[in-house]
Amino acid sequence: MPQTIITLQTRGAGLYEFTGEAQAFVRSAGLEEGLLTVFVRHTSCSLLIQENADPDVQRDLDAFFKRLVPPSDDPSMGWIIHTAEGPDDMPAHIKAALTQVSIGIPVGARGLMLGTWQGLYLFEHRDRPHRREVVLHLGG
Amino acid sequence: MPQTIITLQTRGAGLYEFTGEAQAFVRSAGLEEGLLTVFVRHTSCSLLIQENADPDVQRDLDAFFKRLVPPSDDPSMGWIIHTAEGPDDMPAHIKAALTQVSIGIPVGARGLMLGTWQGLYLFEHRDRPHRREVVLHLGG
Amino acid sequence: MPQTIITLQTRGAGLYEFTGEAQAFVRSAGLEEGLLTVFVRHTSCSLLIQENADPDVQRDLDAFFKRLVPPSDDPSMGWIIHTAEGPDDMPAHIKAALTQVSIGIPVGARGLMLGTWQGLYLFEHRDRPHRREVVLHLGG
Repeated sequence: MPQTIITLQTRGAGLYEFTGEAQAFVRSAGLEEGLLTVFVRHTSCSLLIQENADPDVQRDLDAFFKRLVPPSDDPSMGWIIHTAEGPDDMPAHIKAALTQVSIGIPVGARGLMLGTWQGLYLFEHRDRPHRREVVLHLGG
Repeated sequence: MPQTIITLQTRGAGLYEFTGEAQAFVRSAGLEEGLLTVFVRHTSCSLLIQENADPDVQRDLDAFFKRLVPPSDDPSMGWIIHTAEGPDDMPAHIKAALTQVSIGIPVGARGLMLGTWQGLYLFEHRDRPHRREVVLHLGG
Repeated sequence: MPQTIITLQTRGAGLYEFTGEAQAFVRSAGLEEGLLTVFVRHTSCSLLIQENADPDVQRDLDAFFKRLVPPSDDPSMGWIIHTAEGPDDMPAHIKAALTQVSIGIPVGARGLMLGTWQGLYLFEHRDRPHRREVVLHLGG
């Protein structure tokens, strides 16, 4: 039952792929079958499995969430109370709530059973660089 | 640790129930306790557990997501870059990001521990028919 | 492979923390490593891991979802068909679809591997009090 914590360095809002790191961890365990659980230890970034072919998909995803949840100094967001940590903080919590904190991915003999076009991403919602911890847990 | 891939044929956007297939897979394994992980291998459809009693709930859910994320040829969506695969493609990725790619359901002696009104659905976001692969992984 | 069902009593829409109950269940099992799956057996409330430091975060989260999905008697929601169970029912299903029905949390020697600011919440979307069942499943 291997388990590890990986650290991802972000440089502003957007999607950061780490499919390779997850795949390497799974393959090193040499299981025939199992389940990888990916868990992010933060509440202002999140996880996403999305298309890894056209980078425009990742840009459009980030753009959609920024339009749905603008910064708290935007006139439309005057109802937000939690503003002490900056105008990108409360929207970051909301975007995290709308996506995933935890994803389970089945593992087969060749590793993660992702579809052809699926990549695994950390979705950073804060503007400044952050060090983000992701737990990888490989179980039965 | 049984694992299988099932294929669901969709006929346009909407919810397609497969609670029965998942329940049959779990019961055939004869476990007293366990965890079923359901994982969809695509980025333009997703998974949902929702009310299985009134079909209007499923219609309203589909309608809400279509209003929240209109096709990319809608005037309000002019900011979308990824349009090459059709006006329903990028909205499909966004709706998938807003719902689930993976769901874990505890298993007891009588099978899936779903609530009385819970059904398991594939949520198709593309307009044309698609063959969709869903991995069922039963672990400890 | 311990498994239990806990009951949470809600008193209207909002976030109800149960990190303590989940942590106590995990610690009583005395595992060195594992995975806790939390699963809610309803379709009009959901699960969320969010910031546990400032209660305003929880208020803002609830406020965001109420603005995104107003009651079905709001003029903007005239397209909703499923209104028989009250104006807060269909919006509750939609908010549940936008958040989580199931969350997997890795377990280490000290219990749940949550980040410093992460709390585990039931997110009630109905106005009236409800008794809500949550399954806790601890696996390998």
